[in-house]
Amino acid sequence: MKSKELTDFTQQYRSLIEQYLQQYLSSLTGNPYLIKAMSYSVMAGGKRIRPLLMLAVCQDLGGKITKGALTAAASLELLHTYSLIHDDLPEMDNDDLRRGQPTNHKVFGHAAAVLAGDALLTNTFAWLASADLQPTELLKMVEKLAQAAGAQGMVSGQMSDILGEKKKLTLAELQRLHQQKTGALLLYACQAGTILAQADKKIEKLITEYGQAFGLAFQIYDDILDETSTTAALGKQVHKDQAEHKNTYPGLLGLDGAQVSLKKAINRANQAVSQLQQLGYDCLLLKGMLGYFAI
Amino acid sequence: MKSKELTDFTQQYRSLIEQYLQQYLSSLTGNPYLIKAMSYSVMAGGKRIRPLLMLAVCQDLGGKITKGALTAAASLELLHTYSLIHDDLPEMDNDDLRRGQPTNHKVFGHAAAVLAGDALLTNTFAWLASADLQPTELLKMVEKLAQAAGAQGMVSGQMSDILGEKKKLTLAELQRLHQQKTGALLLYACQAGTILAQADKKIEKLITEYGQAFGLAFQIYDDILDETSTTAALGKQVHKDQAEHKNTYPGLLGLDGAQVSLKKAINRANQAVSQLQQLGYDCLLLKGMLGYFAI
Repeated sequence: MKSKELTDFTQQYRSLIEQYLQQYLSSLTGNPYLIKAMSYSVMAGGKRIRPLLMLAVCQDLGGKITKGALTAAASLELLHTYSLIHDDLPEMDNDDLRRGQPTNHKVFGHAAAVLAGDALLTNTFAWLASADLQPTELLKMVEKLAQAAGAQGMVSGQMSDILGEKKKLTLAELQRLHQQKTGALLLYACQAGTILAQADKKIEKLITEYGQAFGLAFQIYDDILDETSTTAALGKQVHKDQAEHKNTYPGLLGLDGAQVSLKKAINRANQAVSQLQQLGYDCLLLKGMLGYFAI
Repeated sequence: MKSKELTDFTQQYRSLIEQYLQQYLSSLTGNPYLIKAMSYSVMAGGKRIRPLLMLAVCQDLGGKITKGALTAAASLELLHTYSLIHDDLPEMDNDDLRRGQPTNHKVFGHAAAVLAGDALLTNTFAWLASADLQPTELLKMVEKLAQAAGAQGMVSGQMSDILGEKKKLTLAELQRLHQQKTGALLLYACQAGTILAQADKKIEKLITEYGQAFGLAFQIYDDILDETSTTAALGKQVHKDQAEHKNTYPGLLGLDGAQVSLKKAINRANQAVSQLQQLGYDCLLLKGMLGYFAI
């Protein structure tokens, strides 16, 4: 399902995002141990899905991928990395392995891992605000990103996740949790792409539908992989959710039920793509990115 | 040394800042336990020095304290509170008491305290970016704040502090550490005040000198209090720095030496005030605020 367009796009921009990240981290002059801890996790070989999604939306909507757009995209990866470092902490999910490597606190210690996360979160905004884009666009992105990532978004989802470990959630509660924990940041990536492309309200609405469905599919897919894959393949411990009685889609719906839900989410995203195509946008990249969830 | 102007100003604006904080926290719709943990520490009776300093600079420079300015000032208190919550964590300073109350992790648990801090830090930027001010002004504030608080500022200082516990620092190293850990945020408060007042470069330079000296005085004063005060008076454990062989000004210079350094810092701040007065700004508030460090 992966088109040549998407393969070329991913190759080109993933490597540019890596370069931007590497350059930004090298430019920081703070405590060397802190910067080493930050760089360790940022450069640990993530797929860069959020920045790529932002740029894919921008390009599919006819926007130009400028240096400013690349800065906005790459800065999002700092924030995503902070969330992984803090999620892995002993008092959170207590994970030892991430992307096939020891987690941040295992290498740098507990305090340094908290601080590396704090610094990555904070510097996301410093970097984003410095991007070569219009002030009004940038300010909208800062506000949307902070809302998506903060007390009403990602952090709220993580809190519910931790509290929810002690009880069985309903499907509606689980969806709300993941909408905040994983969905909000993916949705922001899409919305930031529409800001970069200066799309109108109608387009923005369709991209929001795509982004919401994408986020849902992403989480269901992740839950399914946790059940069906191996540690070697994923680079992190598997069957962990199940062992910890975590609320997951397969846990609530069974593996077959989860796969049906995944297909429904992908269909919803495809519907938004079809509507965008009727408006004259080919959306080759956005359509292709749904191939990510092939099972 | 506290003038009537400063007393009136502090009374009026401290209560407005409290109102703004209370209203903002009540408006959040995320996980209730998370919001409770955030509110607990934000509304724990801080002196609101950073927001007051920002507004004092604005007013002393002839700027108007608008609703937008109050939002910018109050949002800084969210970020300051996050830094206190994370500093108190077991893996950091491991403090049980803050402002006379049990610390956040003692009340809400370790994971919730990390998340409450994360959310306060993130929502600082959401709130600031939403303030009713010019986009270019706001964007400058977002960037300066994130730089002051992040990997090259406050978080770097905290990292150096923790690593420094194992060795004796030189005076220059200690000053650098505190410039980042405490000074950077106080300096931002001053700089944001100049942005609000739309002051020119010359004024900005003098306010920066004031802010740097204020930050230094603040930390030396805090170190001296830790040696000479009681737990009842401070609402937190005292003589703790000494017990933990922490690097402090009295530890490096003796109590007398620290007091001499404090006076020097206050003098430097007063010199900046004199120069501003020669330019026609009475600076009653900024002069009065140095009375905070009376020993």
